[in-house]
Amino acid sequence: MKRIGVVLSGCGVFDGTEIHEAVASLLALSRAGAKYTCMAPNIPQMNVINHFTGQVSESESRNVLVESSRIARGDILDLANISVSEYDGFMFPGGFGAAKNLCDFAVSGSNCEVADSVEKLVRSAHAAGKPMAFVCISPVILAKIFGQSGVKITIGDDKEASAAVTEMGATHINCQVREMVLDEENRLISSPAYMKAENISELFDDVTASVNALLEMISRVDNAASQG
Amino acid sequence: MKRIGVVLSGCGVFDGTEIHEAVASLLALSRAGAKYTCMAPNIPQMNVINHFTGQVSESESRNVLVESSRIARGDILDLANISVSEYDGFMFPGGFGAAKNLCDFAVSGSNCEVADSVEKLVRSAHAAGKPMAFVCISPVILAKIFGQSGVKITIGDDKEASAAVTEMGATHINCQVREMVLDEENRLISSPAYMKAENISELFDDVTASVNALLEMISRVDNAASQG
Repeated sequence: MKRIGVVLSGCGVFDGTEIHEAVASLLALSRAGAKYTCMAPNIPQMNVINHFTGQVSESESRNVLVESSRIARGDILDLANISVSEYDGFMFPGGFGAAKNLCDFAVSGSNCEVADSVEKLVRSAHAAGKPMAFVCISPVILAKIFGQSGVKITIGDDKEASAAVTEMGATHINCQVREMVLDEENRLISSPAYMKAENISELFDDVTASVNALLEMISRVDNAASQG
Repeated sequence: MKRIGVVLSGCGVFDGTEIHEAVASLLALSRAGAKYTCMAPNIPQMNVINHFTGQVSESESRNVLVESSRIARGDILDLANISVSEYDGFMFPGGFGAAKNLCDFAVSGSNCEVADSVEKLVRSAHAAGKPMAFVCISPVILAKIFGQSGVKITIGDDKEASAAVTEMGATHINCQVREMVLDEENRLISSPAYMKAENISELFDDVTASVNALLEMISRVDNAASQG
């Protein structure tokens, strides 16, 4: 049974994990017979957005791990405490939380910084050859960490975001919903999810395809290792 | 295209809507070609639960409509402002929010009261012959409103909860996951969802079955009306 860490960034598209993308990830992993473990950094959110009005809720502060727990039904780990060797791969749903809490791309663009525990996880997993899938806006994290050493990703076809990704050194490939980019050398998968999906059915199709591609890449890595 | 109102009660299993049940409802409606509209009462939550620790967060207060907006990606209506005639049916996901915010069954059991806007919606829809599906713990709302006039529901097979439902006058029928109870006379569907589902795959199967039963019941009502 493949063991996948699902990295959350809060709970709600405008200040945390995009909820549909997270649930689609968990469902696709469960349907494919994989074991998922939710995890999130134990840090404050960049801000709290009132999702009814769309405005910043100035008086509120929330914690990324605590809010992510809502999606995980309380069954979640602090990202700082996990051991990469216990997982076969990792899945990053999107939402502004990926660009506000896991990194600060939403405000700093190509000058963004990645949260310490996130960068440590991504570098360790990459060094250990663990496949990872990033959807929606979350591939900007890959552009920041691996852009200078060459990495191939998609964030759909948004001009401003893809320009920033290119500025960080990554190769950006335009994708429509249900399409994805495989960077076999770096064992990375990315797909546009709600950057392009126009409804929840398309979104589930897109995320499910990425999850299945992630599990297939893990199988290829395992087979190569057992034959090597 | 069938128009379904999905009634939310916050965002998170312990103080609001169970997120997986809500997303499963939206996905199943989308896959079946129905048009869904999310809606929630504009009232304070009974409490805020820190979903990481499981404890009440005493210093916080949150609003049911505002938090529900996270699941709806901001596209949601105040339950008090909707017109029942614009919908063909309604879907109620579960989570403690259904038993804390839509009614107070979680603390008052069979002596519970139903929130005004919720009771008004349910009574209006019932009087207009609109089918409704309630999953997980949310059928207790039906037991409270229609128990004395006879109604048939399931909330799984939990002894304490089913005893309370029976005390309110409703007929409780034990169900396992993926099973459901159809009360054809009252045009009501109920199924256990996470009262019995042991993982997210079972949960999606259960909720999808209820959504499809709801849409089929609406078709039967429409056919009967066009032939009548």
